[in-house]
Amino acid sequence: MNKKMKKIFAPALALVILAAASLAMAQQAPKPEQLIKVRQSSFQVIAWSSGRIKASLEGQYNKDDVVKAANTIAAVANSGLGALFAPGTEQGKGWHETSAKPELFKDLKHFAELGANFNKEASELAVVAAGGDAAAVKTQYGKLTRTCKACHDDFKSKD
Amino acid sequence: MNKKMKKIFAPALALVILAAASLAMAQQAPKPEQLIKVRQSSFQVIAWSSGRIKASLEGQYNKDDVVKAANTIAAVANSGLGALFAPGTEQGKGWHETSAKPELFKDLKHFAELGANFNKEASELAVVAAGGDAAAVKTQYGKLTRTCKACHDDFKSKD
Repeated sequence: MNKKMKKIFAPALALVILAAASLAMAQQAPKPEQLIKVRQSSFQVIAWSSGRIKASLEGQYNKDDVVKAANTIAAVANSGLGALFAPGTEQGKGWHETSAKPELFKDLKHFAELGANFNKEASELAVVAAGGDAAAVKTQYGKLTRTCKACHDDFKSKD
Repeated sequence: MNKKMKKIFAPALALVILAAASLAMAQQAPKPEQLIKVRQSSFQVIAWSSGRIKASLEGQYNKDDVVKAANTIAAVANSGLGALFAPGTEQGKGWHETSAKPELFKDLKHFAELGANFNKEASELAVVAAGGDAAAVKTQYGKLTRTCKACHDDFKSKD
């Protein structure tokens, strides 16, 4: 390629690279509806697992089941749920219309604090569950569910 | 309570206890639609986490993100997904109509084998991910996705 050709092609090539990069980013960025669907799925899995622990505490205690459920809550909690509330997901339909209140996106600092509390207690519950002491699990489960309620009170609509 | 009263009330009391126990069991047994919803949510979380690992392997490798995603897949895989395919869930709507083929419920032994393979490779991926060797993660991720495909080929409808 001679100098003249370089002068012509170099800017064109730069544009092509830029366009390709933009396209790649656009393809990688998940749509808001997808993020909302994944967060609704994540909380569904968490709620289901929480119900299993509650059933064990109120009925016949099943250590194996509690361990599995607690491990699931801990892993999903710590999977990076905050990223599922990215800008653009304030409204929209995943499996259903989002239940997140507009307030959540206006106070991300408080949301992050509540999320960190949830993650901490979820991780601790997995540790306690492995120990197999039902009374200790009950205490820690209470701590966990209070972090759920705290966030729901502030940032989840009732419907 | 005298003997005569005991004779009258004892069977009645037994019936009441039986009825209460039946009611409690009926309340505890989740509805098929709930089980279908939870399994659809579980696989949504797994697919999302799998996509995160794929993105890391194909782009800039992010160890922390891969560990979180792999831990989530391992925990959900080992949470007891088989129970979500209980009798009565052959058809029905969770978030949407079930994608499970009728064949799944007719060959639960094969389904359990495929599920066990998935669980094994998911657990192994979490271990490998913690090591941080991207090449090893790629190999193990391939093993995992082949267990996904094996089960989808046999038991998941295309729509």
